[in-house]
Amino acid sequence: MNTHKNTSRSRLRVGILGGNGYTGRELTHLVAAHDGVEIVFSTSRSSAGAPTGVPGLVFTEPDEEEAREADLLFLCLPHGDAAAWVERVGRGPRIIDLTADHRPGSGREEGAVYGIAEREGARIAEARLVANPGCYPTGVILALAPLLDAGVVDRNRLTVVNAASGVTGAGRTPRADLLFAEVHGNFKAYGEGNVHRHRKEMMHTLGELELLFQPHLLPVARGILETIVLPVGTGVNATRIRELWEQAYTGCHALRVLPEGIPELASVVGTDRLHLGVVDVQDVADPVVTVVAALDNLGKGAAGQAVQNMNLMYGWDRERGVRC
Amino acid sequence: MNTHKNTSRSRLRVGILGGNGYTGRELTHLVAAHDGVEIVFSTSRSSAGAPTGVPGLVFTEPDEEEAREADLLFLCLPHGDAAAWVERVGRGPRIIDLTADHRPGSGREEGAVYGIAEREGARIAEARLVANPGCYPTGVILALAPLLDAGVVDRNRLTVVNAASGVTGAGRTPRADLLFAEVHGNFKAYGEGNVHRHRKEMMHTLGELELLFQPHLLPVARGILETIVLPVGTGVNATRIRELWEQAYTGCHALRVLPEGIPELASVVGTDRLHLGVVDVQDVADPVVTVVAALDNLGKGAAGQAVQNMNLMYGWDRERGVRC
Amino acid sequence: MNTHKNTSRSRLRVGILGGNGYTGRELTHLVAAHDGVEIVFSTSRSSAGAPTGVPGLVFTEPDEEEAREADLLFLCLPHGDAAAWVERVGRGPRIIDLTADHRPGSGREEGAVYGIAEREGARIAEARLVANPGCYPTGVILALAPLLDAGVVDRNRLTVVNAASGVTGAGRTPRADLLFAEVHGNFKAYGEGNVHRHRKEMMHTLGELELLFQPHLLPVARGILETIVLPVGTGVNATRIRELWEQAYTGCHALRVLPEGIPELASVVGTDRLHLGVVDVQDVADPVVTVVAALDNLGKGAAGQAVQNMNLMYGWDRERGVRC
Amino acid sequence: MNTHKNTSRSRLRVGILGGNGYTGRELTHLVAAHDGVEIVFSTSRSSAGAPTGVPGLVFTEPDEEEAREADLLFLCLPHGDAAAWVERVGRGPRIIDLTADHRPGSGREEGAVYGIAEREGARIAEARLVANPGCYPTGVILALAPLLDAGVVDRNRLTVVNAASGVTGAGRTPRADLLFAEVHGNFKAYGEGNVHRHRKEMMHTLGELELLFQPHLLPVARGILETIVLPVGTGVNATRIRELWEQAYTGCHALRVLPEGIPELASVVGTDRLHLGVVDVQDVADPVVTVVAALDNLGKGAAGQAVQNMNLMYGWDRERGVRC
Repeated sequence: MNTHKNTSRSRLRVGILGGNGYTGRELTHLVAAHDGVEIVFSTSRSSAGAPTGVPGLVFTEPDEEEAREADLLFLCLPHGDAAAWVERVGRGPRIIDLTADHRPGSGREEGAVYGIAEREGARIAEARLVANPGCYPTGVILALAPLLDAGVVDRNRLTVVNAASGVTGAGRTPRADLLFAEVHGNFKAYGEGNVHRHRKEMMHTLGELELLFQPHLLPVARGILETIVLPVGTGVNATRIRELWEQAYTGCHALRVLPEGIPELASVVGTDRLHLGVVDVQDVADPVVTVVAALDNLGKGAAGQAVQNMNLMYGWDRERGVRC
Repeated sequence: MNTHKNTSRSRLRVGILGGNGYTGRELTHLVAAHDGVEIVFSTSRSSAGAPTGVPGLVFTEPDEEEAREADLLFLCLPHGDAAAWVERVGRGPRIIDLTADHRPGSGREEGAVYGIAEREGARIAEARLVANPGCYPTGVILALAPLLDAGVVDRNRLTVVNAASGVTGAGRTPRADLLFAEVHGNFKAYGEGNVHRHRKEMMHTLGELELLFQPHLLPVARGILETIVLPVGTGVNATRIRELWEQAYTGCHALRVLPEGIPELASVVGTDRLHLGVVDVQDVADPVVTVVAALDNLGKGAAGQAVQNMNLMYGWDRERGVRC
Repeated sequence: MNTHKNTSRSRLRVGILGGNGYTGRELTHLVAAHDGVEIVFSTSRSSAGAPTGVPGLVFTEPDEEEAREADLLFLCLPHGDAAAWVERVGRGPRIIDLTADHRPGSGREEGAVYGIAEREGARIAEARLVANPGCYPTGVILALAPLLDAGVVDRNRLTVVNAASGVTGAGRTPRADLLFAEVHGNFKAYGEGNVHRHRKEMMHTLGELELLFQPHLLPVARGILETIVLPVGTGVNATRIRELWEQAYTGCHALRVLPEGIPELASVVGTDRLHLGVVDVQDVADPVVTVVAALDNLGKGAAGQAVQNMNLMYGWDRERGVRC
Repeated sequence: MNTHKNTSRSRLRVGILGGNGYTGRELTHLVAAHDGVEIVFSTSRSSAGAPTGVPGLVFTEPDEEEAREADLLFLCLPHGDAAAWVERVGRGPRIIDLTADHRPGSGREEGAVYGIAEREGARIAEARLVANPGCYPTGVILALAPLLDAGVVDRNRLTVVNAASGVTGAGRTPRADLLFAEVHGNFKAYGEGNVHRHRKEMMHTLGELELLFQPHLLPVARGILETIVLPVGTGVNATRIRELWEQAYTGCHALRVLPEGIPELASVVGTDRLHLGVVDVQDVADPVVTVVAALDNLGKGAAGQAVQNMNLMYGWDRERGVRC
């Protein structure tokens, strides 16, 4: 069924480019614990020679030849560097790109499959290049797409996504505004005015929709909580929303639909799960519900979904080695 | 002009009931630093005899006789206990009630003046009983009221207030969900579905308005950030909003309208200021702006505004002793 | 070799009393992931009926009959309640007591084996009742015992243990001093004057030794760092200390001796490992070294070591199901 | 009495070089609130033109001419840059150097007075150049010096100072190890092996003493707690230590000797106070006491003491404008 090479070998030979950022480290540990693969390298220019935390594996300088010979490459590079590496390695390894370089709206999405694991399994299975989704879009798309498909959302009234993320979402390059003393005890909005890049990524997938996406920076290391005010059709309520999610995500162990109430951040930190909850809203004229999605930006929002995508690409169980 | 007693004395004799909660402590320190008053007592049943942190002042048991003889009483009691004390002390002292007991929507608001200091100065000056506003409503009302007055808000489309508060807003009574290990690294919504008590307080002041108020609990000790998606009339933009605020709040030193951009929490923590900012929102069909209000829930959201109200009641400068 | 019942069954039937404190929750999750056991119950009086977080397992009321029929009981109760349960269940199940009730110095240590997993394997294997060590003593004993055995420590000069722990070490019962707003941004010593209970536990194991143990409360959820100023014999240095540790702990995968430098807290949080490091100290007349031990109070300091003890009791690999 | 210029002017004209680091900002705000001075400039190369937070004052580029014309210069520059500025401005302004450049042990201490405000008032009053003490040494010296003077300390046994500081002590230049995600939930020792620069500063003041100084990095923004194991002479106890402190510091309002117990960090954060406490230690052969000192590294540990030094230099009350 799967036409790509390497499935006969005992273990998949995986390389990680950019293994020492927050996403790279999380992925290196997650992939190291996966029983179907072997990490052949994890690179870091600045930390070449240093231990990765995985026994027996040190960071190495990126090497083009070595990259070409891997079965599968994960790209955890700074946004912008991944596209060049895709060119460079040619038709050799399959690739999962965790940067924004090949996502919808990037201008380079052609030839890449957008890897929302629970929705694009068939296309991911055949993909040579998977664009691993952004952390914020993962939560919003998995929450809203089945509801939009079912026609219960009023696309003409404004959907307001207020999101808040831990600081690892901003990467590990030193910046004054990410110093502990700046973030501790603080909270702020950013990307204000509907200008955050991730909105475009959502819109490409969700289609025509009045959408305001407002992210905030939380004084926590990891995790995303998205509080969504969702305009719905007459008679649509929380119960109906939960039914639609459950239908859409039967057998998706990384997705938990709460039987009542809404999730909190702590329940998902350190996991690869997405928790979804919804409540009815009282005292408003036109019907809305409040949807809350919680995920770990480094888990389901990055490395966890990347491993799901790898599993799908190689015909394995989607949740193999995933922290559900 | 002011018909109440005691203005001839050299210093106003002030009593604080409930001085050892987070609000009570903040108020005790702030009032102690005010050069127009003398604290005659600060009570705490559980900590009677313990130091207040103010040199020379220890907490005492609440005493009805003593309470009656103060010029001014601040009530920082648990919600529900304040009403009984107002009955008890009769026509003696003037009162600033920091609980919810006499706020709009409480059922006991008659006879009380709702003390939004920058908007109700004249009525506060004459009040015997001031209901000090809730922390969340203070930010929302001061942000929205001048805009509603000016008719630039579309009252029929949904105004979405996403708010986040530090944990001191929940008080100092031990609760499992407020333990450090539960809050640290966590973030969650509460009062979901538009049911939080503070919404009613806002609505009584703002009038008919489609309003969804969604609070969250932040892993910080103090401070509130309110991100408001505000539907506005055609042609209304951020510049116009700022003009309206500036007109409304000329000479209000505790209120800062940012010349551009939006405020962050850290700028107001430990102060009695409210910072207001607004930006235009792109890529939406019907016009909205994003308004952000930042204040310290214990400062402008409680003790700071209480001191402003005291100043107004005694004909002093509204910002006397206030951390602007 | 092992004379106790139940080893022929396919899976060990394990019960957890007190499954909803911080230790109980950690243990419930860790044991649920262990492939040699089956959890037959995890109790919580206050949360009976609520989900444990482990799929298919809800908290139940403690039941004496049920407790007697388990193969192995873990006691994660408040200190003081465990002794009564040990009486109650009689000669039925083997027991691992995570409370202080049967530790050295408790007065009830007779009949219990003190379960320092890496040092008492043979005795633990035969034990009916294991007293799982305290979190602070685990680090101090594993760091110092091999050095004392080798005679390189000067027992007459003062050994100073400055330790700092995250708040989960203090349990989950609501207390005002453990509220988020009290701990956030704070740091303090407690048990000052050498009076902390854990010192006695250390002394019983380490023998005659001049020892000052000074704990502190850290504004983190979990983890312990112990900085030990250790007086050593002439000519003893960091290199020699590392050699002694490596000899003592060959094959102990949960113990990592750093090849140089000292460990930090973040390296062990969420794991069952203990990290040990040591450096030489300059500019002092009598030789001392600085030893640093890092562990997670809920991991190697509680649940992790409990699982190691279970493994030893049933003849399994000591690190089976342990997060090394 | 005071032979320096400018005391006749109505307000002292003060300049701040390096006003946008953590120390510079704290000092700018503190000095702006002082009623005896006027800030003529606060410099920041990277933020020239940006607001300082003090109404009406923006950061400017450092200007040699302007610096020479100030009455008093505060140097909050990176360590190493201050010495060059002292050369540059010649005999013009008096100077308070908050860097390490002229502190004891720097090699440039000649001509500078080491500004421990409570101990060197007479010399500071006459100084042209004051070396403002380091944050850690301030606590240790104020705690120990009166005890050493009184001869109650055993200088031959090891005094162990375990100190922990918030991250603002490390400055505001972006560094990977100071990012929020690295510090949050973490705790670590540094300067291990008795090599931290501040030890030398302490030793120059305290004289011959067996001293081990071990700093740690706390996950808080500000504040220092120093837990000192102090060997004392026979019969010396906590009560005696407190008496000696009280004698030494009569009238020193920025120093609080606790009547019993030990201070915690939160009591001093945001203030210019130093809190001292001491307890007796049981179960040790040779007598020791545990001393705890708490101060804000940006307050008494930097800007607060700098303002005290300014007050002393100009014959003002030592605590004028100081947050006691």
